[in-house]
Amino acid sequence: MPPDALALKYRQAIEAELQRVVNFSNSPHLADYHQMLVYHMGWEGEGAGPGATGKRIRPLLLLLTVTAAGGDWRAALPAAAAVELVHNFSLIHDDIQDDSPMRRGRPTVWKLWGIPQAINAGDAMFTLAQLALLDLAGRAEVAVVLQAAKILNGTCALLTQGQYLDMAYERRGDLNIEAYWQMVQGKTAALFSACTQIGAWLACSSPECREAYRNFGADLGLAFQVVDDYLGVWGDTALTGKSSESDILARKKSLPILFGLSQKGRFYQAWTEGQIMPADVPRLTHLLESEGAREFTQEHAARLTHRAMGALGAARPQGEAGDALRHLAEEMLSRTG
Amino acid sequence: MPPDALALKYRQAIEAELQRVVNFSNSPHLADYHQMLVYHMGWEGEGAGPGATGKRIRPLLLLLTVTAAGGDWRAALPAAAAVELVHNFSLIHDDIQDDSPMRRGRPTVWKLWGIPQAINAGDAMFTLAQLALLDLAGRAEVAVVLQAAKILNGTCALLTQGQYLDMAYERRGDLNIEAYWQMVQGKTAALFSACTQIGAWLACSSPECREAYRNFGADLGLAFQVVDDYLGVWGDTALTGKSSESDILARKKSLPILFGLSQKGRFYQAWTEGQIMPADVPRLTHLLESEGAREFTQEHAARLTHRAMGALGAARPQGEAGDALRHLAEEMLSRTG
Repeated sequence: MPPDALALKYRQAIEAELQRVVNFSNSPHLADYHQMLVYHMGWEGEGAGPGATGKRIRPLLLLLTVTAAGGDWRAALPAAAAVELVHNFSLIHDDIQDDSPMRRGRPTVWKLWGIPQAINAGDAMFTLAQLALLDLAGRAEVAVVLQAAKILNGTCALLTQGQYLDMAYERRGDLNIEAYWQMVQGKTAALFSACTQIGAWLACSSPECREAYRNFGADLGLAFQVVDDYLGVWGDTALTGKSSESDILARKKSLPILFGLSQKGRFYQAWTEGQIMPADVPRLTHLLESEGAREFTQEHAARLTHRAMGALGAARPQGEAGDALRHLAEEMLSRTG
Repeated sequence: MPPDALALKYRQAIEAELQRVVNFSNSPHLADYHQMLVYHMGWEGEGAGPGATGKRIRPLLLLLTVTAAGGDWRAALPAAAAVELVHNFSLIHDDIQDDSPMRRGRPTVWKLWGIPQAINAGDAMFTLAQLALLDLAGRAEVAVVLQAAKILNGTCALLTQGQYLDMAYERRGDLNIEAYWQMVQGKTAALFSACTQIGAWLACSSPECREAYRNFGADLGLAFQVVDDYLGVWGDTALTGKSSESDILARKKSLPILFGLSQKGRFYQAWTEGQIMPADVPRLTHLLESEGAREFTQEHAARLTHRAMGALGAARPQGEAGDALRHLAEEMLSRTG
C-alpha cells in the first residue's frame, strides 16, 4: 500500500475512534455541552468537514510508529485518540488565552459560547483524553497502559509550562533563544515525542528501539516548529503580498525574530521603535535576512531534520508503515506555506 | 486515638504529599508558574496559612475509608493528593467562570495573574492530579491503579457536566429540580463518591464493601450540598444581619430557591419582578419559609443524611478510623454556618 493510502486508512480509523470517545453522552440536558465538543472537532456546525478537523498528524504518527515497530495499530487506537484530544483541549484553551476569534476558518469555541463555557469544554476534552487512554486496558499489558498514562501526563505538564512561558514572554519581551527552546520543547515537541514514545511502548521489545523513537518524535517536533517559524516570515502566505499574515506584524517571538533581535542591529532598532504597520513588513523581512536570521533558521531546521531522520533510521522502522513514517516526516518538514 | 487527633495526623500527611507533588519543578524560568500553584494551595503569598488551604475534606475522606476498610492509608496518599488537586483545579477555573475576585479571604488566581495564566494554572493543577494518582503504581496492584484512574476521570467528566449545567441554567432560568439533582451530582457528589470509591478499591476485598462505600460517598456529597444550600438562606452568616451573603441576593439556583420558584406563589412573583436588594432579603427569606421551602430542604437533608449513614453502616467501617469517618460525616452535615 502506498504511504498516502495507508495514511488515509489510519485517518479514517482515528476519526471513528475519536467519535466513539467524544459521543459518550446523550442526555438531553447536555445537548449543548456535547455540541461544543463536536463543533471543535470539526464534525458539526457551520463549516464542519475535512477542512475543519485538522490533519490528525499526532495520532497518525502514533499509529504509524506502532506498525513500523511491529505492533498492532488497531489495539493502539485509544492512545491515538488520546493524543489528538490533548492537542484539541490545548487549542480550545489557547484560543481563549490568545484572544483568537477564528481557528481553521471558523469561529472559535469561546467566540460562540463565551469564555466560561469554553474553559469547561477544554476541561471536558482533557478528561476525555484521559478516559480514551485508559481504554487501552485489555488491549495492552496494564504496566504499559500505566506507562502510557505517565508519558501523556508528563507531556501535559510540559505543555502547561510551555504555554506559561509563551504568555509570560509576550509581556516581558526579554525572551532569549535558550528560553525559546524550553518553550518550544513544551508547546510543540513534547506532544510529538509522546506520540512516538507511546507508540514505541506499545510495540517495541527493546529499550534501544523505544529510545530511538522517542528521539525521533522530539526532534521532529522541534524541526516542525522551526519550519513553522521560518514560514511565518518567509512562507508563501507571509511573503506573497500577504504581509498581514507575517509573524513580524503579529510580533510573534519566533526563532528568526529572536535571532534578529539578539543581533541588536537595524532590525532590533526598527522592532523596538514602535508599532509595525503592514507596509513596514517587506523592509523588516529584508533586514532580518540581511542580518542572518534566514540562514540561522534554515540551518537549525536542517540540523533538526537531519537529527530526526537519523533517529528514525536508528529505530529501523519496518515495512510500508516505515515508508509512510518517513513520508509523513518529509511532508511535515518540507512545507512551503 | 480520638477522631480529631487521627484527622490531624492524616491532614499533616496529606499536606506533605501535596507539597511533594506540586513542588515538582525548580526551573528559574518557571518561578511564577510554580508560584500560582503554591499560592492557590494556600502555602505561599499574602494570607497564606491554615485559613487559606481549605479543610482537605476529600483526601481525608479517602484516607479514612482506606483505614476503616482495613487498608494501608500511607500507600493511598498519592490518591488522596489527586482528589484534592482535582478539587483545586476545578476551583481555579470556577473562580474565572463565576467572575469571583476572592476565595477563602484572598484574591483569586485570575485576579492576581489574569485570566489566560489562571486557565493554564488550572490545567497544570489538573495534570498534577493525574500524575499524583499514577504514583500509586508500586504501592497498589496495577489493575487497582487503573481502576482508580478510571474512577477519577469518570468523575472529572461528571464535574464538567455539572459545571456546564450550572452555567447554562444561570442564563436560562428554567432549571427544574430534576436538573438540579443532575447538576449537584456532577458538581459535588461525584468527587465525594470518587474519594470513598477509590479508598474502597484500595482496601476492600469484596464488591459489597466497595458498593457500600461508593453509596456512602455519593449520599454524603448530596447531603453536603443540600446542607450548604440550606445554610445559604438560613445559615448563621446569611441570617444574622449579613443579608449580603444570602443566596437569595446572589440569585443562586439552590434547592430551597428552586422549590420556592416551583410553587409559583408570592416568592416566585417577587423573584421574577426584578432586582433584589439587600433590604428585600429578610422578606423573601420569610416568604420562602412560609411557602414550605425550609421544610422541604430540611427533609431532603435529613433523608440524604440518613441514607449516607445507612450506607456507611453497611460498609462496616472498622476501628478508630471508622469512628473518625462517622465523626467527619456528622461534622459535615451538622454545620450551622
